[in-house]
Parts: sequence; structure tokens; C-alpha cells
Amino acid sequence: MATVTKMATPDEVAALAMQRIGAAARAAAAELALAPAEVKNQALLQAAAALRASAGDIQAANERDMQAGEEKGLTRALLDRLMLDEARIEAIAQGLEDVAAQPDPVGRILADWQQPNGLKISRIAVPLGVIGIIYESRPNVTADAGGLCLKAGNAAILRGGSESFHSSNAIIQALRAGLVAAGLPEAAIQSMPSTDRALVGEMLRAAGLIDVIVPRGGRGLIERVMNESRVPVMAHLDGLCHVYVDGDADPKKARRITFNSKMRRPGVCGAAETLLVDARAMAGMLPAILDDLITEGCEVRGDPAVCGLDPRVSPATEADWTTEYLDAIISVKIVNGVEGAIRHINNYGSHHTDSIITENQESAERFLAGIDSAIVLHNASTQFADGGEFGMGAEIGISTGKLHARGPVGAEQLTTYKYVVRGTGQVRP
Amino acid sequence: MATVTKMATPDEVAALAMQRIGAAARAAAAELALAPAEVKNQALLQAAAALRASAGDIQAANERDMQAGEEKGLTRALLDRLMLDEARIEAIAQGLEDVAAQPDPVGRILADWQQPNGLKISRIAVPLGVIGIIYESRPNVTADAGGLCLKAGNAAILRGGSESFHSSNAIIQALRAGLVAAGLPEAAIQSMPSTDRALVGEMLRAAGLIDVIVPRGGRGLIERVMNESRVPVMAHLDGLCHVYVDGDADPKKARRITFNSKMRRPGVCGAAETLLVDARAMAGMLPAILDDLITEGCEVRGDPAVCGLDPRVSPATEADWTTEYLDAIISVKIVNGVEGAIRHINNYGSHHTDSIITENQESAERFLAGIDSAIVLHNASTQFADGGEFGMGAEIGISTGKLHARGPVGAEQLTTYKYVVRGTGQVRP
Repeated sequence: MATVTKMATPDEVAALAMQRIGAAARAAAAELALAPAEVKNQALLQAAAALRASAGDIQAANERDMQAGEEKGLTRALLDRLMLDEARIEAIAQGLEDVAAQPDPVGRILADWQQPNGLKISRIAVPLGVIGIIYESRPNVTADAGGLCLKAGNAAILRGGSESFHSSNAIIQALRAGLVAAGLPEAAIQSMPSTDRALVGEMLRAAGLIDVIVPRGGRGLIERVMNESRVPVMAHLDGLCHVYVDGDADPKKARRITFNSKMRRPGVCGAAETLLVDARAMAGMLPAILDDLITEGCEVRGDPAVCGLDPRVSPATEADWTTEYLDAIISVKIVNGVEGAIRHINNYGSHHTDSIITENQESAERFLAGIDSAIVLHNASTQFADGGEFGMGAEIGISTGKLHARGPVGAEQLTTYKYVVRGTGQVRP
Repeated sequence: MATVTKMATPDEVAALAMQRIGAAARAAAAELALAPAEVKNQALLQAAAALRASAGDIQAANERDMQAGEEKGLTRALLDRLMLDEARIEAIAQGLEDVAAQPDPVGRILADWQQPNGLKISRIAVPLGVIGIIYESRPNVTADAGGLCLKAGNAAILRGGSESFHSSNAIIQALRAGLVAAGLPEAAIQSMPSTDRALVGEMLRAAGLIDVIVPRGGRGLIERVMNESRVPVMAHLDGLCHVYVDGDADPKKARRITFNSKMRRPGVCGAAETLLVDARAMAGMLPAILDDLITEGCEVRGDPAVCGLDPRVSPATEADWTTEYLDAIISVKIVNGVEGAIRHINNYGSHHTDSIITENQESAERFLAGIDSAIVLHNASTQFADGGEFGMGAEIGISTGKLHARGPVGAEQLTTYKYVVRGTGQVRP
């Protein structure tokens, strides 16, 4: 009988690639889970050294991506995100060294008790296993994500954007050189073999091979991942952050914190998008705050009362209360005290980061308790929403989901736990 | 002009019901999140009292379900799960009192530090929000789930199986009477208005209204939920649990623990399904273990070596290593020491609960570290996989997922956290 050979379809090729990469990642994860802290840290330090040693190759790879990006007509902002120079490569290497210096999140005893029957039960932090990271065109995410996964004893499968393909692969080479130098399996950090979109679909279907998917990027990517994924997802959605200036605010703090929350870097997820002002603070504090913003080039869209305060304010529409501008634009609304602010934020916000400016301790506590967000601040800028600013060394992103990790996701948040039960022959009655 | 009125389709009716119930749950959750521990506990105690006071009504409702179940031809096992007598209603009431007696999981300070810039950061346990529970026909789940959600400050939306519809509703009335008596919003515990399957679909699509879905039931239900849900799911999959008898086991402990792990209650998720025996223990220990099981009526399916030991053993097929029998059946395989056991369990198991029997401390530690399961035990029965046996008071199930909660899910696991940051005017440089 003749054997019929059929060409594999592109989907079958993608499925086979996923199987191969996933199986290698699982085997590497089992090894990494048992690796001592020193060995993992050694791998991180060696990876940093390899990054510096191969800075020339990385820049050459980046050059290819930049050229293709220019030909494709990428915006200046995107090209700037993509670009790697010596200083940026040094910063990436330094980031890996910072992660190495953090305490090891694996093996922490989270709880520990004895049952009346003599069973000793402990809840112990262990790695999550295999983490899939799907991200857009920032090559530094490659090193941050790979490094944090390694620190937490996880294997990583990276799928970066097509625009940074060569840059990311060059960085991955350095990370893998670090693994090999420390005697750890190279497959602990892998990238998908191409930027074929079918491979993203395979990752999202790879339950059993991948334990968690972390998407990093724009709304389109995140929504696709959240809708399609059969693997649990650590959600990183919008940063629709608010500053609320209370009637009992210190006017100087109100000006400084509002300005910093919006204008320090308007494009980060912790940037304020909406300013809420207590009716009692409108006449006394808001004009100066508006003037600061507008003078610096910020566009202000306000409710009718705010428009009445300053002719340079344009009218806000309902859509403005739900828009993450990521730009020098802010919407401003007058509310009735802290209760009005809480209602607005829990209704329109994205549960990311919100700040109250007040000298009234009672109002502050009411706000901190009543706002359902990952990060709530009192008298501080929303732009502190950052793993580094929280002392975590690095972050893979800011989770706006409620399951598992909320707020900055560092190495500790990339672990789970297991129960270890030690007996002396107990059986259940 | 004439107005055309169109009948709403069943799907539109389901969507509207979900909107209404979800909005009421969100409002109730916001109130419950701020409720003091005493008030929540008062609601639990009042609910227990209401359950006892309405035991007659509950039994009458259960009578309707039982009659319908008999007409539908439900198996004896299913009818037994469904049945509520006075003793079972008392046990349910006692369960709510046990939950009330547990420490409050909300408001715990999980971490607390100060940054060099003076920001004081704390990570504080807060409720998850709105929890959707989709379960099959065990009416006691209604009270366990509702009570645990309430304890953790969450609103619950319950969707029980059609077979227990009247029983569950009668129990929910008692739970709501408890809420009202304690001055808490009745909408903190709601049930879907019918057992229409379209309503399950609406729950699975209700991202934004429901924060987490917890499915409890058979494989079909769980897989539907995990495949269809757009809301994060706390997975409760199979309990394919293993006992591994090491060559250095105490033969008495090996017999007693193996027998208990399988035969105490063969139908629970913590029951052992596969017994692995070190080649060194085969001749010395396995015959007596097999005899215990077979004498008690347990069917044994073994690999060729095991079949050779006892003529009453039938040959196991590959499918036996991945089958959760939930019955008096066990598969038995000879492995090469602890490494062979780890390889088999991580490959075929369901990451639920696995136990090693050995007097060799080094082998025990190797097993406890190497097995990637929610619960790993040394010299103790797998049937201890239970929130009550862990001292948690009650559980909503055993999570086999790795995100958020692993192992028994009690009130503590139904919380998330937020970061509270207290400043004195800090802005980010």
C-alpha cells in the first residue's frame, strides 16, 4: 500500500512548534523550580554581563528593526520605544542586576500550623511554572519579563511584536547565555520562532503547557488575549487614573500633585486622566491648577462649571470620563465631596490607581477604603504606580485584575504556593 | 407613526436578568466590603437561626425536588446527594456558625513598608467583589458558598443545578433573612431566577459585573465554564490523586494510609486513584496492600508486574493512569524509586493531592519538593485534602489551578488585596 504524504498546513506547523516549545519549557520549569537562589542570581548576573558584551550585536539587530520600522512608517513615538542605544542596553543590564539583588520569592513559608491530629501544614511559595508573555514592540520587556520569570523559578515563553523581532532575539541570546553559564537549562527562556499571528493563537490554547499568559500592550492586544485565551490571564488593562482634590486639601499639594500626576509623563499607565474637584475647592483651588496645566500645554476638557472658570477649557463629553488619553489631555469634573468622588471613580475608573489630596484624615480614610482600585494614594502622585517605586526592583506590568496579583507584578507575584503536609501515619476517620 | 413592539427573545430576557442581578450585586458588594466583622458574623448566625426555624419549609421544598428527581430517574447516589433531612439541615446551620467563628479575612495587613521618599505602603486584604458560583445538585453548596462569600465581604450570585432548584431557593431565603436581620443588603446573596441554561452563558459573559466564577461539579460543567468564560475562573478540576509507597516505607503505615486514601470515601476528590509502588517494596509490601483493598471490594487494575502478584488483579490500560474513578477502583504501577514516582505523577496527575509513604527523610523531601501539586503529603492519607481538615472552617472547593488560590478555597482565598499608599505631598521626580 502506498503511503500518502500531506503537506502540513501553517496551523499544523504552528501547533507543532507550540508543542515542542511547551514541552521544553515544562522540563526546564521543573528543573528551575528546584534551583537554589544563588544559581538563579548567577544566571541573571551572567546575562547582564552577556548583554554588555554583546551590545554591538544587539545594536546591529536593533538597526535592522529600526530600518524596517522606518520603511513601514512607524510613528516617531514607536520608533523611540524601539530604539536601543548603549545607554539603554546598559539600563537593561542594570535592571537584571537589580532583580538578582532582590530577595528570592521561592520557598517563603507563607503560613505554618499544626492540626490537633498532629499534621504539620505549611503553605510554601513555589514558582507558577511556565509563563507566556505576549507583548508589543518594546525590546526592554524581553529582558524585564525573562529576568523576573527566571528570578521566580519560572520558564518563560516570549512572543514580542514583529517590529522588535531582531532586537528581542538578540537580547534573548544574552539571557540564554546567562542560563548556560549558571548551569541552568537554556529552554527556561524561549521565544516563539516567528511573529506569525497563528503562534499567538497557539499560545492562548496551550493550557497544560503554559500556566499563565501575561499580555503587555495596547487595548487591542489585551482584549484579544482576554477573549481568546484558554490559559489563565493576568490582566493588564487601562490605567484610567484619577486625582481627587478635596475641599480640605492643602492648595500647594493639590497643585503640585495634580500637575505631576498628569504631566510628569502623560503617556504612562499611572498618569492621571481625570481630575475630580470638590465643589468646596472649585473657586479657591481649581483656577491655579488649571493654569498650571494649560500653561504647560495640557488640553483641559471640563464639565460646565469648569468651563465657566477658564475660557481655555473645552467642554467634556460623556466619553471623556472613560478615555485613557495617554497624552497631555485631562478631563475635569466638579463633585460633591469625597462621596461624589468615590461614586465617580468606582463607576468610570479602571481600578488601577487613584489619589486623594486632603488634610482631612477622615475623608482620606473614607477614600482609601471606598475606592475599589489596585492602588489608592493619599497626598501623593498617581505616577508612583510602578513596581520600581514600590521597591520591587522591576515589574512585568500593573495588574488591574483582582485574581492572584493586583497592582505591580514583580517576581513575588510570579509565584503560587503549595501545601506541604507532614504526618506520622495519620489516616482520616 | 405607529410604534412597533417586539417580543424580547429568551436570550434578551436572560441578558436583562443578568444586568439587573449583577447591578444589584455590585451595589451590595460595595456595602459589604465596608461591613465590620461583627455585622457579617451576625448575619451568618442569624442565617443559621433562620435555617433551623424554617427547616420544615426547606424539607417541603426538598420533597418537591426529590419527587421530580425520582420521576426523572436520577440515580440513588444523586438522590442521596439531593436529600435534606433534619440532621443535614442542622449540619448546614452548624457550618454557617463555624464560618462565623473563623477570623475575619478582610483588612489583614499582608505587607507594610516605607520607601526612602517617605511613602508608607501597605498591602491590605479586601474582598474580591462579586462571585458567581455555578454548581450541580448538592443543596448544601448553596449555604457553604453563600456563607463563605459573605464572610469574605463578597456578594454572591448562585446558580445551582435544576434538580435542587427548590431546595436551594429555600436555603437562600434563610441566608437572606440573616442578611436583613444584620442590616446588610439582601442582594448580597442572589440566585439566578431560573435554571435556564442561557443564564449560565450570561454569567460567563458578565465581565464587569462578576469578578470571579467558581464552578463546582462534574467534568462537563467545569470544562464548559473554563472554555466559555470571559470572567476569570477559579478552576476546580479532577482529583487524580496518588499514593506512592517507597522502598523505605513502614509497611504498616503503607497499608493503613493506602487503604484509607482509597476506601474511606472512594467518591471524594481527595480519594487516591493510582497507587505507585517502589520496585523495592513490591515483594515485601504490595501483596498485603492489594489483599486489604480487594477484600474490601476494591477493583485493582495493575501493570504486568502487579498482575503477576495477585490473580485477582486485572490488567491496566494506558487510560487507567489518567482516570478519576471516584469509585472503589484503583490502578497500581511499579516505579523506580521516588524519581520514578515524581515523573509519573507530574505527567499523569491532576496537580491536586499526592502522598509519599516513607521513613526516609531525604526521599520525602525530594517528593514534597518535586511534585507539582496543590497538596503534597508525607505519611498521611490523601483524604485529608479538605478545607475543614486544614482548619479553614469550610471550603468552597479545592482549586487545582495555580493562579490566586491553590488547594482548599476558604474565606481567606475569596479575598484579594489593594495597595494603600500614604504620602505627605510626594511627587515623582
